[in-house]
Amino acid sequence: MHDVSTVNVGILGCGNVGGGLIGLISEQHDVVLARTGADLRVARVAVRSISKSRDVDVDSNLLTVDAAAVVNDPGIDVVVETIGGIEPARELILAALAAGKPVVTANKELLANHGAELYAAAAAAGVDLLFEAAVAGAIPLMRPLRESLIGEPITRVMGIVNGTTNYILTQMTEAGASYHDALAEAQSLGYAERDPTADVEGFDAGAKAAIIASVAFGVSVVAGDVYHEGISAITEADIAFASRLGYAVKLLAIAELVDKTEVAVRVHPAMVPLTHPLASVRDSFNAVFVEGGAVGDLMFYGRGAGGRPSASAVFGDLIDAATNIQRGGASLGELPRASIRSIDDIESAFYLSLDVADQAGVLATVAAVFGAHGVSIRSMEQEGLGGDARLIFITHPAREANVQRTLADLAQLDVVARVGSTLRVIGE
Amino acid sequence: MHDVSTVNVGILGCGNVGGGLIGLISEQHDVVLARTGADLRVARVAVRSISKSRDVDVDSNLLTVDAAAVVNDPGIDVVVETIGGIEPARELILAALAAGKPVVTANKELLANHGAELYAAAAAAGVDLLFEAAVAGAIPLMRPLRESLIGEPITRVMGIVNGTTNYILTQMTEAGASYHDALAEAQSLGYAERDPTADVEGFDAGAKAAIIASVAFGVSVVAGDVYHEGISAITEADIAFASRLGYAVKLLAIAELVDKTEVAVRVHPAMVPLTHPLASVRDSFNAVFVEGGAVGDLMFYGRGAGGRPSASAVFGDLIDAATNIQRGGASLGELPRASIRSIDDIESAFYLSLDVADQAGVLATVAAVFGAHGVSIRSMEQEGLGGDARLIFITHPAREANVQRTLADLAQLDVVARVGSTLRVIGE
Repeated sequence: MHDVSTVNVGILGCGNVGGGLIGLISEQHDVVLARTGADLRVARVAVRSISKSRDVDVDSNLLTVDAAAVVNDPGIDVVVETIGGIEPARELILAALAAGKPVVTANKELLANHGAELYAAAAAAGVDLLFEAAVAGAIPLMRPLRESLIGEPITRVMGIVNGTTNYILTQMTEAGASYHDALAEAQSLGYAERDPTADVEGFDAGAKAAIIASVAFGVSVVAGDVYHEGISAITEADIAFASRLGYAVKLLAIAELVDKTEVAVRVHPAMVPLTHPLASVRDSFNAVFVEGGAVGDLMFYGRGAGGRPSASAVFGDLIDAATNIQRGGASLGELPRASIRSIDDIESAFYLSLDVADQAGVLATVAAVFGAHGVSIRSMEQEGLGGDARLIFITHPAREANVQRTLADLAQLDVVARVGSTLRVIGE
Repeated sequence: MHDVSTVNVGILGCGNVGGGLIGLISEQHDVVLARTGADLRVARVAVRSISKSRDVDVDSNLLTVDAAAVVNDPGIDVVVETIGGIEPARELILAALAAGKPVVTANKELLANHGAELYAAAAAAGVDLLFEAAVAGAIPLMRPLRESLIGEPITRVMGIVNGTTNYILTQMTEAGASYHDALAEAQSLGYAERDPTADVEGFDAGAKAAIIASVAFGVSVVAGDVYHEGISAITEADIAFASRLGYAVKLLAIAELVDKTEVAVRVHPAMVPLTHPLASVRDSFNAVFVEGGAVGDLMFYGRGAGGRPSASAVFGDLIDAATNIQRGGASLGELPRASIRSIDDIESAFYLSLDVADQAGVLATVAAVFGAHGVSIRSMEQEGLGGDARLIFITHPAREANVQRTLADLAQLDVVARVGSTLRVIGE
């Protein structure tokens, strides 16, 4: 049926993803051969230590510590990079592309910082650079954005792209856990690192947001363009209040096209209406919600991380690259640099909580500060807290800069004991 | 950047989807040109009546009533079929493929009945046959299944693929409407046809299930292979009971691989746990849940129908076909005929309701019938109904044939006034 062609695969790294990929190539070899004609062979595997014991069954004759030798081996047809980090991954990928070899990578950090250089190198070489596993792990997202939706006028992409923080927020919501207890549980389950900063402060989600924005809007967005806030300041009280009003609290990565020319990219916790599909994404699952002018609303849901799910995404890319070798490459090409809309100029509705002295006239004083910055209050609730009171506000949509100035001025008031969490509120 | 090539598109049909496509080609022409190098031009449009007024702005010189002339025009590079039905769509598509032209179609009925013939013709001609819009309208599903997941050991696909029935079930659940009132509302909103049989009795979902099974498992499954039940027998009481137990009632299309060799494909209403992502798919939205051995659980969510969403899916396929012309085709190829597992041999847990005489010994009589067929009861509840009582059972997983024999025998009992709804219960 299909012309059979042998495809020699060079794999850089043999950890969870690289090892999982080797397992899948072995298990699914015959199915892929029958369906595509690609006879996939693991030809060489670059590792840090040859003697280390591994879960995966790999012929030790294929192992080498010289990654550059794998990339430069004329017998290697496709290179899969699973070592992570910026260097030497960047140099190895550029060398593979320059040698006319398609590359598959799961390297979020590299793409979020040097994506444009790599996409341009792939285009110049006329070969594929595929990276489905770099964002939202196992979820087919990059391919639908790059192919199915290439002609779609996408207006906004909102994603839950960090499983650790979604697990923590789910535990806080469903078990009433505190942030610290939920984090400790995530750490004990291996969902969170011992130093959880990259996850809980939104750095990981920010890198993914940059990649999503680049692919969705066809412009170069880097991690440094992404405004980010994390979840470490969120309290049980915030989540309980959001639940009472019909919202779930989620850490969202949001990329949107503003006035058709500028791109706004940010990561922050948000109140999401319970009727919105993102609200029901629980535990460590990821989901990405895409809004298009013609297609309407789409959502892609699945495992954001994990060795075998990520290996599955790499495997899909590998098959694509392997079957594309003879037909030349598809790539993002040279992306123009994005025009970035500053977070200061984005409008959102806000949830704000303030601990104030429980005395007459406080609300008038506080409300005057909102008014002075043109921030309009949609609703207010007051809760007693012993000698203090807590005021919880939801604002109408307001410019970020005006809200930040409001918060700064509120913090200066004698009657304000503490400015609590701020959450942006997503509409229906 | 990209080599520019003019692509002359012949469109068969100019209704909601064809007209929507013409609009998108016009609006997005420059974006597609910049991103892919394809200079898309609507070259000819086959319509039933040239004089009919249309919403879309199309040059009347492009219109013809001769669809075969469009297909055979040597100036046409890609053919898009949006006329629907079996003939003449089948002959026109075969003629286009034989002439070496890629074809994009939204024709669910044709693919569900003659898919294997068309896939083989595309493979023989070495050109694309793309049909994203045929299943779950705007949702990128066919491409992820065919490409991203081609090497994934998929075990089961479960979808809400009919928007009309999902709208009706959502109204019954959230507004407490009766089936007939919810259907009438769906009809008044244009979500349901005047004769709703194709939707509410599961024929539409069955055709989609056949296409999904073919693509997911790489075997030929036709509409006639699909067992189907509809939603017209479901009562408010069934839905209320399901809600109380933590389930939503959904019409599911299920395709699964059994013992690695047989395919079971069926459409029926099911009780879905509220914690399952499919349970939160509301109104007329569609979603398809994919379970894979490596990738884990995935879900794809979006608009299942509608002119512009479906046109968006056709447009994505058109861009793919247009950019693939020079690189030869990708297709499903010649699919072997599926080995179909009979519904009789499938195991499910069941919800059953029985109206019985409210007298001593009835439960023992009824339970003996279950026992005689080896159907084990997991839970039973009794509700008073005036002189009668209603017994509601949830069974342990049992063979379909045994449950059907149980139901037939129960209907013969003097103490059973009525055998009510049966719903299969999906696990967590």
